Amino acid sequence: METAITATVINPQELLVHWQGHRSLTRRVIEAFPEKELFEFSIGGMRPFAKMILELLAIGGPGITEIATGISKPFNEGGEAFSSKTELLKKWDKETEVINEHFSSLTLDKFHEMNNLFGEYNFPAINNILYFIDNEIHHRGQGYVYLRALGIEPPAFWER
Amino acid sequence: METAITATVINPQELLVHWQGHRSLTRRVIEAFPEKELFEFSIGGMRPFAKMILELLAIGGPGITEIATGISKPFNEGGEAFSSKTELLKKWDKETEVINEHFSSLTLDKFHEMNNLFGEYNFPAINNILYFIDNEIHHRGQGYVYLRALGIEPPAFWER
Repeated sequence: METAITATVINPQELLVHWQGHRSLTRRVIEAFPEKELFEFSIGGMRPFAKMILELLAIGGPGITEIATGISKPFNEGGEAFSSKTELLKKWDKETEVINEHFSSLTLDKFHEMNNLFGEYNFPAINNILYFIDNEIHHRGQGYVYLRALGIEPPAFWER
Repeated sequence: METAITATVINPQELLVHWQGHRSLTRRVIEAFPEKELFEFSIGGMRPFAKMILELLAIGGPGITEIATGISKPFNEGGEAFSSKTELLKKWDKETEVINEHFSSLTLDKFHEMNNLFGEYNFPAINNILYFIDNEIHHRGQGYVYLRALGIEPPAFWER
């Protein structure tokens, strides 16, 4: 039985490290933007990168808090306003701690429990968690194009 | 002991479905590009989307084949040339089958075995597999910006 218990695709701690590795890279992408362009630059009518970051902030920490506590709150993207890169990074770091705390409290059986995220998205918790990570990679990839269009070299994708 | 065996973060079949869901979305993003722009349009000196797809094709199928068979081959991005969207999609579909076949053959203990991918990237297989998926999401996110810059509405990110 030992093998069946220790052999897993990925364990919770590894998934947390994986996610925080991505969040660390996203933080460096935020830092790479000049102050003004972070809040104003866009391509093809898309949102500036700071607005995409507001979406990520409204999903990651609140989402994992809901999965851990079972207390569902409506999605709230515009809850806080940030007018500088420093403020945005401070909030990012605060959410890093929120995610660490609540993710670490998840027992293994939680991952396949249904989770009606924000009262709207009813999926097994693991699917919602993978969505948090994938959505961050998706928007960060868009941030890379913004940086390249601004003539700025983004951080290497594989460095976490 | 039953609980310890059935409660997992994610099982191999679920991870395969997750990846193929992403690959299905990427396929629709390829389809959304006009023929010429797929091979030529770029922003900020980046590669056209077709070139990014060549990278994904050189990683996903060959990577999972290597993990399943243990036979390492050097990374080979330029192995095949594609001059039309139809050819590229045909190759994409062929790799879908390769991935299904080899991924399905992976036993649970394989995921944490070290895998010196392409003779270069020595990580546990699960880290390499997550890299395949993340890298696809990253470049597809860039393809979304290209489409928006071309005035084309991309497929919804959450539809797989």
